Amino acid sequence: MLISDLGERGLLQLIQSYCLPNTIGDDGAIVHPPEGCELVVTTDVLVDGVHFSDRTTTAFDVGWRSVAANLSDLAAMGATPLGITVGLSLPPTLSVVWLEQLYQGMQACLERYGTGIIGGDLTRSSVATVAITALGAVKADRIIARSTAQIGDAIVVTGYHGDSHGGLKLLLAAELGQTDFTAQQQALITAHQRPQPRLDVLPIIDRLRATSQTLTISGMDSSDGLADAIVQICQASGVGAVLNRSTMPISPALSQIFPETALDSALYGGEDFELVLSMPEPVALELVKNIGNGAAIIGKIGRSSDIVLIDDLTGDSTIYLNRQSGFQHF
Amino acid sequence: MLISDLGERGLLQLIQSYCLPNTIGDDGAIVHPPEGCELVVTTDVLVDGVHFSDRTTTAFDVGWRSVAANLSDLAAMGATPLGITVGLSLPPTLSVVWLEQLYQGMQACLERYGTGIIGGDLTRSSVATVAITALGAVKADRIIARSTAQIGDAIVVTGYHGDSHGGLKLLLAAELGQTDFTAQQQALITAHQRPQPRLDVLPIIDRLRATSQTLTISGMDSSDGLADAIVQICQASGVGAVLNRSTMPISPALSQIFPETALDSALYGGEDFELVLSMPEPVALELVKNIGNGAAIIGKIGRSSDIVLIDDLTGDSTIYLNRQSGFQHF
Repeated sequence: MLISDLGERGLLQLIQSYCLPNTIGDDGAIVHPPEGCELVVTTDVLVDGVHFSDRTTTAFDVGWRSVAANLSDLAAMGATPLGITVGLSLPPTLSVVWLEQLYQGMQACLERYGTGIIGGDLTRSSVATVAITALGAVKADRIIARSTAQIGDAIVVTGYHGDSHGGLKLLLAAELGQTDFTAQQQALITAHQRPQPRLDVLPIIDRLRATSQTLTISGMDSSDGLADAIVQICQASGVGAVLNRSTMPISPALSQIFPETALDSALYGGEDFELVLSMPEPVALELVKNIGNGAAIIGKIGRSSDIVLIDDLTGDSTIYLNRQSGFQHF
Repeated sequence: MLISDLGERGLLQLIQSYCLPNTIGDDGAIVHPPEGCELVVTTDVLVDGVHFSDRTTTAFDVGWRSVAANLSDLAAMGATPLGITVGLSLPPTLSVVWLEQLYQGMQACLERYGTGIIGGDLTRSSVATVAITALGAVKADRIIARSTAQIGDAIVVTGYHGDSHGGLKLLLAAELGQTDFTAQQQALITAHQRPQPRLDVLPIIDRLRATSQTLTISGMDSSDGLADAIVQICQASGVGAVLNRSTMPISPALSQIFPETALDSALYGGEDFELVLSMPEPVALELVKNIGNGAAIIGKIGRSSDIVLIDDLTGDSTIYLNRQSGFQHF
């Protein structure tokens, strides 16, 4: 059954079943912002053929990833989600099953993080496009901004980087005929297909704040790559950074499967949806211990505006990081 | 100069110049919801070839209309705007001038209503797509919902209907060679190109509320047509409506230029972005007087679930209104 067979009314009914109760049916949805909180709003657009393709991503995964990308932006601001709106443009020749699986994927990710769909729009287009806006709430003194990194801060990542890029490479190889994957390979593929926005880190940070008054945490998410995140934080804060090769957050799986390219994937692969944060070292040590699994201190904020990766393993020459090597849309 | 020539960094810089200061530069934008207010969120997606085309709509007008459609949804909820996010998907072969004019159109409409762009996303696509999410604030006891129309309520429209549809027909005729338009024809074209969201009606309603305690106003906007709005309000409220042919809100210009089709355009043309409201008759009379120019009481909410248009002019047979005659995306 195609979307054009179902008709507009049928489509809206189908979509409504995936929305939070009592939110749909008016020109806008009502949100109750918690008292004393700032509201955070973020928008991400995913386009068929650019951000996903039938070759590497099921409809369920498109839904999951589009929600995860938006929730990750909220986490990067220190905000917990209040709901999302979904602006969907679809070719009439798409199957209803695809649409249902898309919403099932969105809902699965939303439910895991205790939130849901509160509104949206549905239009015809020749290209499937998912435009999501997520709303979140954060207390004013807990906002995580890019521009407040301090000289001497430790730089923390909440998990491994590059796995998503490695997973994508395996999926593209699968296209060429590979069908059996080891558990290790499958872990990379899952990292690509079901990224986990790090909203779970926020309550841990909150507990650390309780013991450390006037704590400033700077940061963003690593959706466009680890190097991009560090460069952006440094530029916004007017500082530099020194990273160490030995502490690069590369998973055992990635370094075993792609030993030659693991560092490049970690720095420039993107779509890991981890948080890259800067904070005083004692807090950083405590945070990394509490998060575990892949979380690490990878360097320090420095006075010089250079952002360098020192190879403390082999003594190879220092790499100067930049954003150019990352994914460019245009 | 094409968008692909400017590159991603250049594009973001260009777009940033159209955003409200201090809102861009983090993963999300911060909004301060006014105290004691509910937040309203609404999303509208416009797609090239579906909602606009180079034949009838300049880039400036695409920008204006996409913002107007969203602000109209806020007005329909009784909410004043706090800001919008813009999720833009563009072909790299589009000209930079087109993009600039799009943002100029958005900004012109936003400034007129005292608000601005606070965030967004920019991606590549084969089809230009503008996905806007608007945020607004409304006090809980002033929310305008579709589901609260009361039997006996007067039905008010805030202005003429069908002009936008008439304007579109003239623009399509212009394509066939017509170049000179009378002032009256130009008025219809302007109605199509620069719709005015009726945020100006909200302070008038507020003044009426001051003199009438526990006033319930139901309603929505007429973006999908006057008939659609009335049917949706009636269905959501479990009531019916009786409208009169003699009070249909048709402008002198429309009835003179398109005498045969004016009623059809008014009922089913859509994109007039007026408000369709129901409220006790004394309040309705006062409201219509205060709005002026095209505002009218067009009928009454009734007990029967039928929604009928009685021809009190010619005695022709009664029309039963439905939503099917409106624009269907799928």
